[in-house]
Amino acid sequence: MKYQHNFNPSISDADVFNEIEKEKETIGYYNLVHQETSDFKKYAASVKQTNIVVIGIGGSTLGTYAIYKFLKHSKSLSKHLYFLETTDPIDIKSKVEAIDLDDTLFIVISKSGTTIETVSIFKYINSLVKCDKINTVVITENDSKLNSFAKTNYIKSFEIPKNVGGRFSVFSAVGLLPLAIVGIDIDELLRGTKEIHDSFFGVTHERAVYEKLIKKARFFVEYKNSFNINVVFSYSSRLEGFNKWYIQLWGESLGKVDINSTRQGLTPIGIIGPIDQHSFLQLIVEGKRDKTVTVIKVDDFDSDLNIPHIKLYGLEELDYIDGLKFSSLINSQADATIESINNLNDIPCDVITIDDVSERAIASLMYEYELLTSICAKFMYIDAYNQPGVESGKIILKNKLKN
Amino acid sequence: MKYQHNFNPSISDADVFNEIEKEKETIGYYNLVHQETSDFKKYAASVKQTNIVVIGIGGSTLGTYAIYKFLKHSKSLSKHLYFLETTDPIDIKSKVEAIDLDDTLFIVISKSGTTIETVSIFKYINSLVKCDKINTVVITENDSKLNSFAKTNYIKSFEIPKNVGGRFSVFSAVGLLPLAIVGIDIDELLRGTKEIHDSFFGVTHERAVYEKLIKKARFFVEYKNSFNINVVFSYSSRLEGFNKWYIQLWGESLGKVDINSTRQGLTPIGIIGPIDQHSFLQLIVEGKRDKTVTVIKVDDFDSDLNIPHIKLYGLEELDYIDGLKFSSLINSQADATIESINNLNDIPCDVITIDDVSERAIASLMYEYELLTSICAKFMYIDAYNQPGVESGKIILKNKLKN
Repeated sequence: MKYQHNFNPSISDADVFNEIEKEKETIGYYNLVHQETSDFKKYAASVKQTNIVVIGIGGSTLGTYAIYKFLKHSKSLSKHLYFLETTDPIDIKSKVEAIDLDDTLFIVISKSGTTIETVSIFKYINSLVKCDKINTVVITENDSKLNSFAKTNYIKSFEIPKNVGGRFSVFSAVGLLPLAIVGIDIDELLRGTKEIHDSFFGVTHERAVYEKLIKKARFFVEYKNSFNINVVFSYSSRLEGFNKWYIQLWGESLGKVDINSTRQGLTPIGIIGPIDQHSFLQLIVEGKRDKTVTVIKVDDFDSDLNIPHIKLYGLEELDYIDGLKFSSLINSQADATIESINNLNDIPCDVITIDDVSERAIASLMYEYELLTSICAKFMYIDAYNQPGVESGKIILKNKLKN
Repeated sequence: MKYQHNFNPSISDADVFNEIEKEKETIGYYNLVHQETSDFKKYAASVKQTNIVVIGIGGSTLGTYAIYKFLKHSKSLSKHLYFLETTDPIDIKSKVEAIDLDDTLFIVISKSGTTIETVSIFKYINSLVKCDKINTVVITENDSKLNSFAKTNYIKSFEIPKNVGGRFSVFSAVGLLPLAIVGIDIDELLRGTKEIHDSFFGVTHERAVYEKLIKKARFFVEYKNSFNINVVFSYSSRLEGFNKWYIQLWGESLGKVDINSTRQGLTPIGIIGPIDQHSFLQLIVEGKRDKTVTVIKVDDFDSDLNIPHIKLYGLEELDYIDGLKFSSLINSQADATIESINNLNDIPCDVITIDDVSERAIASLMYEYELLTSICAKFMYIDAYNQPGVESGKIILKNKLKN
């Protein structure tokens, strides 16, 4: 009797790790942790303008926004960062009107160099202010048409390596250049990514990140038909940008047809505590058991802001909160949510506590999620780094507009 | 042979309508369309302050934010509206520092009157500025402790009727008062809701809204096990607030245990076009077939902003967009997305086109979604108006904080 098999059973942990190590030779984002940053810092130091406007969309903005939003109120940054990313005319107009364009550096970011939203907005900006080497810088692939434009006009450009995908590009020039310009410590960002990298790839002795991520990814994939939705419940409004970045990373990387022509896809949801305790939590607690929940907490907000001892006649029953720090309150709210979910015993829930509101903390979190995404893709037998599903819409649009 | 049945088969369209008509006698939101608005307008006209700060969370803020965000750049509003809703200390501090508190009216909104986030923030505000009848107004239930506080301090209060749930309260004082104060035409809002109301309940001859909503709700519920995720894909950044409001309305109303003790729950997702074409669309197109998609378009943005005829050397291949209005571009992007989804033939997709960026348009859309939610709940044999699932977390929190 002979047997030929065409099934693809669940891959072993060791095989996944070997595949990731092999992939590391060709997929660029893994190795951004070792980058030389002096070019970015040198350019950043030369920028005179107060306003920094990134023109880009998707992977060209979401990661940068996530880090900026997380840190901007905790650092004293001397410059303001804005994002022009949509073709909504009211949005463009209202944002542009609020910025002094004569004191602005424009950073035009497009990996392909021909993103329709980015070029449209950049053309519009060109009708308002002269864009030249003084006030414009470009980040794109070396052989893109946007780079030809930059070269012809003596505009400085920074490279997005071909093997770094848009949604994995936050720690390339795409994120590091604008963030360095506004005053964020990009070496600390890379230090955060490197800690995760080293613990995953075994550069350091302990392999805590490897153990955690392999187990987590395997769970997500093995239970994907029961739990097709992965909720990230972030207990800080500072993580709103992170949530959006996670949604792109997870949705666009894992929503794919696998090697057996089967549709895969874990659906990302990002919510914010305690706000969404008043919105989404009811659905998690009483609704269908189709969701995993990852709660993200910030251990140290570095804030003494507290609820003062003030009597409000009629509302004395809430006096037990007097004197409490807001940071303790929000973390107690997170703990209460976790406890109430765990008490149900049938909702998979894990907790990530990041140390503080720092470059190192947010970068560790983001790099860990990039690794987790890559590992899930291996378990699912899909390519995390392409996005063939959005091409047909682009072709239809082009035909509509050309006719 | 005798037969006793305990099954609850799918209810007929006519029965659902009758149940909604019956419910209309006890559930308050349906009838807000007939409200007298002169009290709100009179109070609004008396407000001298430039900054209006709503202190509230969940149903006390989301609907108001949705309408304000939709309209604020298209109307010339004389006042600014802010929301203090989270216990994140960095968020509170950064927002409060940016507002001149001496030129601010505080609107404290809590249906129960003892919402912990709202009272905490209000106490904090009291430590910064004296809150009295000059600069404070309260919106709450008549017999709440917040109302006792208001009465004792001669602070004006407006009522949230007991039978209007928080997430259905946007067209009560909760939304109408702050919106009237900043200069939004609340009669036009109610006109928008009344058009939908009349077309649904048969006050007018045509019943287009009835036909549409019953059919849509039945589809969502009958296919809930195949399509457990309902994506709203809004093609305007102005609808970002609407998306958040929809997520609360849908998630908190429909995530319930039904009369047969079975967990129900349709999961809402709100995304923004074209931004999320670069984030979530790949998952819709190639991922698992577990999503319905509702695309929302704005027919008339009332904007002539266009892409100028500017040559960018190297980027000539995109010259076909020159001269195009941004409003045409964004709507063509929506149409291309719809066409590419429809071409797949296995993703349920509908399109809502709202007329323009007006009070009437956004209110019609929101009232229609309230009705749709109520109808789905009937088909699902659940109570749309309670939220028992969030209580246990509140009790755990209280015990944590008291100890």
